[in-house]
Amino acid sequence: MGRNVSIRDVASAAGVSVTTVSHVLNNTTGARVSEATRERVTAAAARLGYAPNKLAQGLRLQRTQILALLSDHIATTPHAGRIILGAQETASAQGWVVLLLNSGGDPDLEDREISALLQHQVDGVLYATMYHRKVSVPDRLSGLPVVLLDASSADARHPSVVPDEVGGGRAAVQALVTAGHRRIGFATNVDDIPATHGRMVGYQQALTEAGIPFTPEFVVVEQSDAQGGYRAALQLLHMPNRPTALFCFNDRMAMGAYRAAHQLGLRIPEDLSVVGFDNQELIADGLFPGLTTVALPHYEMGGWAVNTMIGLLDEAHPASHRRRRPTQITMECNLIQRDSVAAPATA
Amino acid sequence: MGRNVSIRDVASAAGVSVTTVSHVLNNTTGARVSEATRERVTAAAARLGYAPNKLAQGLRLQRTQILALLSDHIATTPHAGRIILGAQETASAQGWVVLLLNSGGDPDLEDREISALLQHQVDGVLYATMYHRKVSVPDRLSGLPVVLLDASSADARHPSVVPDEVGGGRAAVQALVTAGHRRIGFATNVDDIPATHGRMVGYQQALTEAGIPFTPEFVVVEQSDAQGGYRAALQLLHMPNRPTALFCFNDRMAMGAYRAAHQLGLRIPEDLSVVGFDNQELIADGLFPGLTTVALPHYEMGGWAVNTMIGLLDEAHPASHRRRRPTQITMECNLIQRDSVAAPATA
Repeated sequence: MGRNVSIRDVASAAGVSVTTVSHVLNNTTGARVSEATRERVTAAAARLGYAPNKLAQGLRLQRTQILALLSDHIATTPHAGRIILGAQETASAQGWVVLLLNSGGDPDLEDREISALLQHQVDGVLYATMYHRKVSVPDRLSGLPVVLLDASSADARHPSVVPDEVGGGRAAVQALVTAGHRRIGFATNVDDIPATHGRMVGYQQALTEAGIPFTPEFVVVEQSDAQGGYRAALQLLHMPNRPTALFCFNDRMAMGAYRAAHQLGLRIPEDLSVVGFDNQELIADGLFPGLTTVALPHYEMGGWAVNTMIGLLDEAHPASHRRRRPTQITMECNLIQRDSVAAPATA
Repeated sequence: MGRNVSIRDVASAAGVSVTTVSHVLNNTTGARVSEATRERVTAAAARLGYAPNKLAQGLRLQRTQILALLSDHIATTPHAGRIILGAQETASAQGWVVLLLNSGGDPDLEDREISALLQHQVDGVLYATMYHRKVSVPDRLSGLPVVLLDASSADARHPSVVPDEVGGGRAAVQALVTAGHRRIGFATNVDDIPATHGRMVGYQQALTEAGIPFTPEFVVVEQSDAQGGYRAALQLLHMPNRPTALFCFNDRMAMGAYRAAHQLGLRIPEDLSVVGFDNQELIADGLFPGLTTVALPHYEMGGWAVNTMIGLLDEAHPASHRRRRPTQITMECNLIQRDSVAAPATA
């Protein structure tokens, strides 16, 4: 199994070209490959047990081929499991194992986990957070290659990948503008985190691009859960000249906005359009009508981090230039269309 | 940090007796310790870096002190992350590291992951499933100690822990009976899995105990998601002498039942009581009113599996008798009360 599998076999199994397989498995910068294709290639490589030759030859004897994914809460909360899926599948397709450790956000526990990592000689650490945060990489990791995953740092020594919060916010509001809305409320989050600031910039950019003046009253700041979304939506929908559409900071707030709309006798999407953020399927698929929302690129970020780490570790790897010039990238957040957006009744 | 920490320090930090700490960390059979206490003790042990002496002395030199948690989907889906939390915190408190691997349910990938485990010399494998399933342990694991986690096997060689689905179903229906309901519908799951059968038995037991005859029409079988729950609830609520309360197979189906109730103008809990299962907080806390539901003992099962494995590995450990007589246990599922149950209007 896997011993004589070539890149051609993977390409054939995935129904794509050899070049595409190479782009996906090496995560070539600038290559345009859709998420679906990327997943198909990764899955085919995993199924066939394909390990690229360079890695198989060059690394197997020198490395433990264990990466650690050291995170706060990713494995234990329902928010960002696809980060792990992307990392695990990408690593596995190349013969690597991901050792997953969660600190629960406790610095003491994190410190003991780092001791374990050092003791067990992992080759590198993916330092990951459950949601996009600014972090300081612990000093004790300074002897190991580190890639930041869904996190960024003021100090630019480490490659990092975070979601494009601005672009995601813009995509959400553009969907509403395109449907014909001009009065677009924003139920946003009280927490001082990059997502809050980025999505606000995206909201304002989309309005500006559409020639819609920014109305401060249309932005309500609340807790980022269903209760907060309910209160924010009620406040917005009680305005005399109320918004015809709401952009909600996340799907949990959108769940509360649905409740507010029901309570006021407003039908979604006929009387009120709603767009969320996060694409948490338990909510977005469970609500009626299905919630149009913006997906975080969790799977893709996990895969990018693994490929970048393998690049750091292998001088022969095409991505090895990243060792000298760490890349900080933002990754696109795509709109996922369901049924909560329609033209405004009054348009 | 952690070097001179005694069991007394942990007891003091957790505000419990030394005996309680010992029960929790050794997972003594028959000891009654609440979930809250258990978590407090585990957290205190983790915070203080407490490692029981026997383990620290006996095992550190002989073992890699790595356990693998080999699962299908736990880390990557929003259902059962607390299994990982319980395993990780329990292991960490005793100086062990949990290496987490997901197969995505793909036997080929699982096989390659087992190769990695064998290569990296883990001491034991927690073979875990995202939801309670019957499994066959792969032959290639036969050289390692295995504990089944949220899974059971026809072959009784391995210790296993699964939720008490029957008891959980009974607790859900008892809550409705206690509130005064006699006409209790059951929106259940079409899948042929232990949870489906167990919860049905629990439903029937609770009715029998209350002297309520079983009404086959009150059981509707559907897909286990919000759409399925919606359809099942509509069917039940359209009956001439409709149920005054619904037990839903899971919280996702309960989410659909809420939608059906809203659509028919029935208020929860005034006109209809609802109980779910799983305690998926995104849903149970996000719904209005908050959903009364039954919690799966994910955290506790994860902790039990780790303690049982450490017992298997260490002859000096108090739990070492388990090596000779593997234990198959079921763990209690407790009712979590929120606001979706009230007395029937017609009672």
